[in-house]
Amino acid sequence: MGRNAIVGQSGGPTSVINSSLAGVIQACQMRGADKVYGMLHGVEGLLSEKVIDLNTKLGSSMEIELLKRTPSSYLGSCRYKLPDYLTHPEVYEKLFAILRKLDIGYFFYIGGNDSMDTICKLSDYAKQTGSDIRFMGVPKTIDNDLMMTDHTPGYGSAAKYIGVVMKEIIRDATVYGSKYVTIVEIMGRNAGWLTAAAALARSEDCEGVNMICLPEVPFNVERFIDKVERMQKESASVVIAVSEGVKLEDGRYVCELADDARFVDAFGHKSLTGTARYLANRVANALDTKTRSIELSTLQRCAGHMTSRTDITEAYQVGGAAAKAAFEGHTGMMVGLKRLSNDPYQCTTELVDIHKVANFEKKVPMEWINAYHTDMGPEFLSYARPLIQAELTPVYIDGLPRHIFLPDA
Amino acid sequence: MGRNAIVGQSGGPTSVINSSLAGVIQACQMRGADKVYGMLHGVEGLLSEKVIDLNTKLGSSMEIELLKRTPSSYLGSCRYKLPDYLTHPEVYEKLFAILRKLDIGYFFYIGGNDSMDTICKLSDYAKQTGSDIRFMGVPKTIDNDLMMTDHTPGYGSAAKYIGVVMKEIIRDATVYGSKYVTIVEIMGRNAGWLTAAAALARSEDCEGVNMICLPEVPFNVERFIDKVERMQKESASVVIAVSEGVKLEDGRYVCELADDARFVDAFGHKSLTGTARYLANRVANALDTKTRSIELSTLQRCAGHMTSRTDITEAYQVGGAAAKAAFEGHTGMMVGLKRLSNDPYQCTTELVDIHKVANFEKKVPMEWINAYHTDMGPEFLSYARPLIQAELTPVYIDGLPRHIFLPDA
Repeated sequence: MGRNAIVGQSGGPTSVINSSLAGVIQACQMRGADKVYGMLHGVEGLLSEKVIDLNTKLGSSMEIELLKRTPSSYLGSCRYKLPDYLTHPEVYEKLFAILRKLDIGYFFYIGGNDSMDTICKLSDYAKQTGSDIRFMGVPKTIDNDLMMTDHTPGYGSAAKYIGVVMKEIIRDATVYGSKYVTIVEIMGRNAGWLTAAAALARSEDCEGVNMICLPEVPFNVERFIDKVERMQKESASVVIAVSEGVKLEDGRYVCELADDARFVDAFGHKSLTGTARYLANRVANALDTKTRSIELSTLQRCAGHMTSRTDITEAYQVGGAAAKAAFEGHTGMMVGLKRLSNDPYQCTTELVDIHKVANFEKKVPMEWINAYHTDMGPEFLSYARPLIQAELTPVYIDGLPRHIFLPDA
Repeated sequence: MGRNAIVGQSGGPTSVINSSLAGVIQACQMRGADKVYGMLHGVEGLLSEKVIDLNTKLGSSMEIELLKRTPSSYLGSCRYKLPDYLTHPEVYEKLFAILRKLDIGYFFYIGGNDSMDTICKLSDYAKQTGSDIRFMGVPKTIDNDLMMTDHTPGYGSAAKYIGVVMKEIIRDATVYGSKYVTIVEIMGRNAGWLTAAAALARSEDCEGVNMICLPEVPFNVERFIDKVERMQKESASVVIAVSEGVKLEDGRYVCELADDARFVDAFGHKSLTGTARYLANRVANALDTKTRSIELSTLQRCAGHMTSRTDITEAYQVGGAAAKAAFEGHTGMMVGLKRLSNDPYQCTTELVDIHKVANFEKKVPMEWINAYHTDMGPEFLSYARPLIQAELTPVYIDGLPRHIFLPDA
């Protein structure tokens, strides 16, 4: 049994993934890991033996506090997809040789669907080859689309950020009292969880957004323009949250109607962008109104200055729970979050079989969307509201939030 | 002499313009104004007698506190340009008749260049027609392009926001360790003050942006691509801040090279957008790199959740100083900010002749830009750093910052 632990981060950054890293590191140290290594740029970096010693790199408790407040992935990330071990055994042999050399007993991977696929393959390979290295998945994704967990760390902070900026955009957009359609594009390829968070803006002090368009609902451009026209008769300023992933009835993405270049990554995902701009142009051509499109872009996943303390805390907890489970002998599992109650909000962690997580996607239930497909129902608000509660104040130095980073990563 | 005061907001919103409104209201009340009216949607609304009584609408000190923390213009705004009074005396006669009916003695207008033009014309007209109404300008603009003031309220908060998100974007963009050019488009039609604020990101914990492109420097697309190529040899991730207003040597805006529709407002300003997207496409076609464009769009002017306390306080002070001056008999003036020292930062207010402000634009001094036209020099950092210091914590209710708004505005 190896005496050391290793941890990596993978997939898109979030503003709390480093809090999970802090949770893994501190729990491993507490449970007696000799060394805690960090792999730079995930498994891809590990294959080139790009590894650092986190006991020395993050030696002080101040550094751990800053780590919790630093957005993006401290260790760097990758979008590397492990090949099948039947066709490419040499990749696995190389990886396990490196792990043996580092005397690794515990392997943690913080990420989303694709990263859980990595843990799934590595733990299966370990079982088949008799390796006793324990592989644990730590959930992370702003998209909130992982199965077997009530929600994912990263979602609460991104949802809070979206609620905050939608309130601000609504205030800004009403200012001239003139006809104005603002279309805000929010991340979410197939699941509308983030776009749905725009519904949180409505409160005593805010009219809320006028329409929410999720990828779960087939999109029709003409019907969309009709709805905007009707809404603008009620209020001159119309603010719409639209998912980058909205698709036509025939399955094409709306952004494919625009003439922008597209990029396909290693997992075959299309890079989606331009949905809001395309729709704003269509509305401007069809109706007598000024329009504006706003893409929240990477701002929504790296807004470390505006996190949910609930989310930061849970991100830390799943990291700690993964270390605990690994040291207690578990492998091939992911730590899920299990909600006990909404009000008061109570949530605990549980272990789930990684095979039930990897490569699945959890979508927004259709019954949480209103009948007109323009807004979220009360079930969603009860679900999402607890996840955005409370704040973790940044450490401001000379006017800006302080981060921690690896210059050589 | 009228016993009442009236105040309006005009031009683009900022996150601290309502703090100036609070300053005007409280100082007028303290100095014995009978009523303080707010014009809805500026002078344009005033011409339709859209006026509210602020003594009743904002009666409690809690409401005033929330007002300071609410972005955008509480009273609504307009982009209405007063016509010349030689050709359109009827507009002035109507306006002054409304002011007489409301028994106005003191008139305050919070805004930028165009709003100071309004104060200039109204105070000139008052002098020529023997009206004793006092007209005072209160400076506001994220663009920081007003003459006769060290800086403008609104700039410090927008600059802080830009510094914060650039740090976050830089962290996000380095995460894969692969070649990646991120081009961030920042507001500023002719003056690069906001784009220059991207220079604030560089510090012990951040590499800083790689290039800053201001509208003050003629732009050449080919040279830009060459610089990016050279920079990418040093670091795979290149982050660039570019002003929406960068112009070619022949005077055309870079965004005019793209094929997007353009909009011209009442002041003849072109709506500029698409600069970063155009440049990101050009770079992607010319170099072997992934690119991304991010427009900060209205987010940079309405980020009430991330303000500079220095800025909020000064915004309040210029409002109060304008009221003081009007009650002491001044008219046709704007309250400017006069910096006494950088370190420790000390700043006071002074009265300046509105004729020296209206319709002028203050640009970034060329000697504050480095010789390669890629970065800001130390003079700029000494100038801007004090303006982003300290924070005003939002009042969070149920996870989101609380605002105050006029549902009927």
